[in-house]
Amino acid sequence: MSDAYAKLLDKLRDIGKLDALDALLEWDQDVMMPPKGITAHAECVAFVASERHKLRTSPEMGELLEQLNDADNDPVRATNVREARRKYKRAVKVPAELISEIARTASKGRDIWAAARKANDYAKFSPTLGKLIKLKREQAQAIGFKEHPYDALMDEYEPGATTKDVGVVFDELRRQLVPLVRALADAPNQPDVSILHRSYPRPGQEKLCRKLAEDLGFDFDAGRLDVTVHPFCTSIGGGGDVRVTTRYDEQFFPPAIFGLMHEVGHGLYEQGLEPEHVFTPMGMYCSLGIHESQSRLWENMVGRSKAFWQTRYALAQEMLGASLAGVSLDAFHAAINHVAPSLIRVEADEVTYGLHIILRFEMERDILSGKLEVDDVPEAWNAKMTELVGVTPPNDAQGCMQDVHWSMGAFGYFPTYALGNLYAAQFLAAAKRDIPDLVDRIAAGDTRTLLDWLRRNVHRHGMRYQANELCREATGESLSVAPFMQYLETKFKPIYGLA
Amino acid sequence: MSDAYAKLLDKLRDIGKLDALDALLEWDQDVMMPPKGITAHAECVAFVASERHKLRTSPEMGELLEQLNDADNDPVRATNVREARRKYKRAVKVPAELISEIARTASKGRDIWAAARKANDYAKFSPTLGKLIKLKREQAQAIGFKEHPYDALMDEYEPGATTKDVGVVFDELRRQLVPLVRALADAPNQPDVSILHRSYPRPGQEKLCRKLAEDLGFDFDAGRLDVTVHPFCTSIGGGGDVRVTTRYDEQFFPPAIFGLMHEVGHGLYEQGLEPEHVFTPMGMYCSLGIHESQSRLWENMVGRSKAFWQTRYALAQEMLGASLAGVSLDAFHAAINHVAPSLIRVEADEVTYGLHIILRFEMERDILSGKLEVDDVPEAWNAKMTELVGVTPPNDAQGCMQDVHWSMGAFGYFPTYALGNLYAAQFLAAAKRDIPDLVDRIAAGDTRTLLDWLRRNVHRHGMRYQANELCREATGESLSVAPFMQYLETKFKPIYGLA
Repeated sequence: MSDAYAKLLDKLRDIGKLDALDALLEWDQDVMMPPKGITAHAECVAFVASERHKLRTSPEMGELLEQLNDADNDPVRATNVREARRKYKRAVKVPAELISEIARTASKGRDIWAAARKANDYAKFSPTLGKLIKLKREQAQAIGFKEHPYDALMDEYEPGATTKDVGVVFDELRRQLVPLVRALADAPNQPDVSILHRSYPRPGQEKLCRKLAEDLGFDFDAGRLDVTVHPFCTSIGGGGDVRVTTRYDEQFFPPAIFGLMHEVGHGLYEQGLEPEHVFTPMGMYCSLGIHESQSRLWENMVGRSKAFWQTRYALAQEMLGASLAGVSLDAFHAAINHVAPSLIRVEADEVTYGLHIILRFEMERDILSGKLEVDDVPEAWNAKMTELVGVTPPNDAQGCMQDVHWSMGAFGYFPTYALGNLYAAQFLAAAKRDIPDLVDRIAAGDTRTLLDWLRRNVHRHGMRYQANELCREATGESLSVAPFMQYLETKFKPIYGLA
Repeated sequence: MSDAYAKLLDKLRDIGKLDALDALLEWDQDVMMPPKGITAHAECVAFVASERHKLRTSPEMGELLEQLNDADNDPVRATNVREARRKYKRAVKVPAELISEIARTASKGRDIWAAARKANDYAKFSPTLGKLIKLKREQAQAIGFKEHPYDALMDEYEPGATTKDVGVVFDELRRQLVPLVRALADAPNQPDVSILHRSYPRPGQEKLCRKLAEDLGFDFDAGRLDVTVHPFCTSIGGGGDVRVTTRYDEQFFPPAIFGLMHEVGHGLYEQGLEPEHVFTPMGMYCSLGIHESQSRLWENMVGRSKAFWQTRYALAQEMLGASLAGVSLDAFHAAINHVAPSLIRVEADEVTYGLHIILRFEMERDILSGKLEVDDVPEAWNAKMTELVGVTPPNDAQGCMQDVHWSMGAFGYFPTYALGNLYAAQFLAAAKRDIPDLVDRIAAGDTRTLLDWLRRNVHRHGMRYQANELCREATGESLSVAPFMQYLETKFKPIYGLA
């Protein structure tokens, strides 16, 4: 091992430890911290962020990277050097003042957005949004890009993704999804969702959540399950300490059960990273899109499949109490797969969901290129909602102000959600090719075979490949919408009585 | 504010944030972390320690301290500069190799000690202990001292304490305690402790613990109560986030109830530090002896007083269940104040306790001066136990190997436990002088008046004064054993039927 690489590794590991401290602070704040701890806590968070930035942008880091070659024969070294360089470049190219200006504006922006949304008053939010757009455009220019300024922003969340490639995929997805959503809305069989809104006492939901997490392979010796208002998953220094949360509504069980499977999907990915590469890129997740593919695969493609519930529905009926007595597995399966075009992204079903994302992707792309200005956002939003989802927001609170992301300057994040669905379907299709009886196994209660496939083909690679490259390695093909659309049609058309 | 002082303050605050991160990692490890998280967790702990050491010993810190004067007119500045200098000197004077050699030996030492204790085989432990003694002697020489090498080690836990001063106080304590312990053992009235060993269901103990913590003034908006095998208290970045733990034994309630009050005592001190000085010495606890004074004051002097239970015993009877039905307040009070000479420090009552500490103080002092060698430790221990406590250990596991401290190289820590008792009694006596009806108020259910006195006279000062100076400021006199002995005699003689 060259001296320069050994030194780089030490620095990367220190950065990884600061990531772990940041994750611990964040988890603790959401799950454990008493309210008056917030001031000191926030100072610690800022301190960790500043130390991490110093390490990432240190002149010594620059010198080491000059001595090292991305095209190393050893894939581990090549990965760690490539990722260190990518993050170094992103960090040093943006002037410190711009970084703090964005942070300051975003920090105030969140409160301003919350107040404006509550008052349903876009005019209160637009000056801040306008400023953030201006700053993010400057940031994209500073980072640099080959074709489109939006590339520079997506790269933060989905390394290597380009506006052009994502645009091609999303155009096709849009073309196929819009008619499917319409067809399902007009279909003869509509599920009875009233069975979801009955009395489901919390202790039973808790028992079922724990049981499902264990069944799916979540290792509680390397993780925890807690309760928060907004469920999430985090890992504190790699796969040995992965913490998921969920929430409970005693009148509506899906948020707990499917929220749990979603976060456990994230957690299984983290628990599947290689311990020997902890704290370095080789031991970290590939991209947010790939991360999301794991959560959605387990939540929707496994967790809302009839095969999965075949061996588990009786148990769910027992644990969730009397409310499911007499409800058939078919009725249950239909209800948990209810599709309905609606206004709010976070409440959207898995079919409509992609359209909410395509809307945001197209708008962010046009905002970054300067084609769309801040004053025209509400109108553009409403027009696109009508065109894509078929519903028109009655106001901006339920329209362009519904998400927190823009108020925090997080442009480029949304596409990862829909990419996750597409990657998930493509992985699952490949796993089914490799393991022809995979669905039978799931129907017999065995989900570990699928988990093992994901461990081998996705998890253990860490950041070795960028997302689309990982997709080709794992499935033999570049990302396409075909597997996802096929998955949707195969599942939803029978439920809705469509040919 | 001078430029140099402003820079020093920034550095001290960064060190304080690393202290907070260390506290969070430690708390999380004991209370929340899943078992497989330990490897990454330990690496994060080591990283934080190393960053903190770097900050403390940086050449820039040395230069700033050269420009600054301890004798500043402003007490806050004077305190922060004095403490920064004290810690800088301690840190830079000891060679880095010696520090790591101690850390390595101590880290192995703990396991070796645990195995040797289990096997009751001092010969297995003595080589490691001998090495640690040698290293700690070297460390004391490196740090430097005026009169006794042990001064240099006590300074880590009790800044400013000297072997000579502590020796004078402990000699007097020894002289008065030994006959009191004997007299109580031979006294006509012996409490019936069987009432403590009945069935006390955990939910009731939990409710009572929470109620007592709230009654004593613990702010749950600025703290938590959790469960651990070994109870402790920690604060994460000052008084806004103070976390205590306790444990529950359904056949014996005192560990939960009095352990809780002990840790809440520590917690009330932390919650009483000044928020404006967070992360700096002025906002930190004075010494471990003063910290322990707060835990023992609330656990023993308040928590085991008849006045305290006057308004609360009925509630305790109700919450703890049927086992206390028919037990009078006098019988309860006598049982929770049972005194009996015994072998093990951590199980000792508050009267005998000081003798266990004096033994350790005298041995550590002689070990550091070279008067006592490692091979002679067991014999010296047993002789002192017989002389001081009146019992002779049947083996070294219950003798000189009972405590973890020496195996970790923590010489100089033990005295703070007994100093805590003495400070506590002296503070309480002063509070009673200042508030003549203090005991009546406690008997009427009001403990806040005492807490307010401690907040004003002890807590808010942070590290402004060193312990003995704080004692003079708060009580008008230097530390003496008189208030403690008077407290013991006033409480215990009536219980035991002594004149």
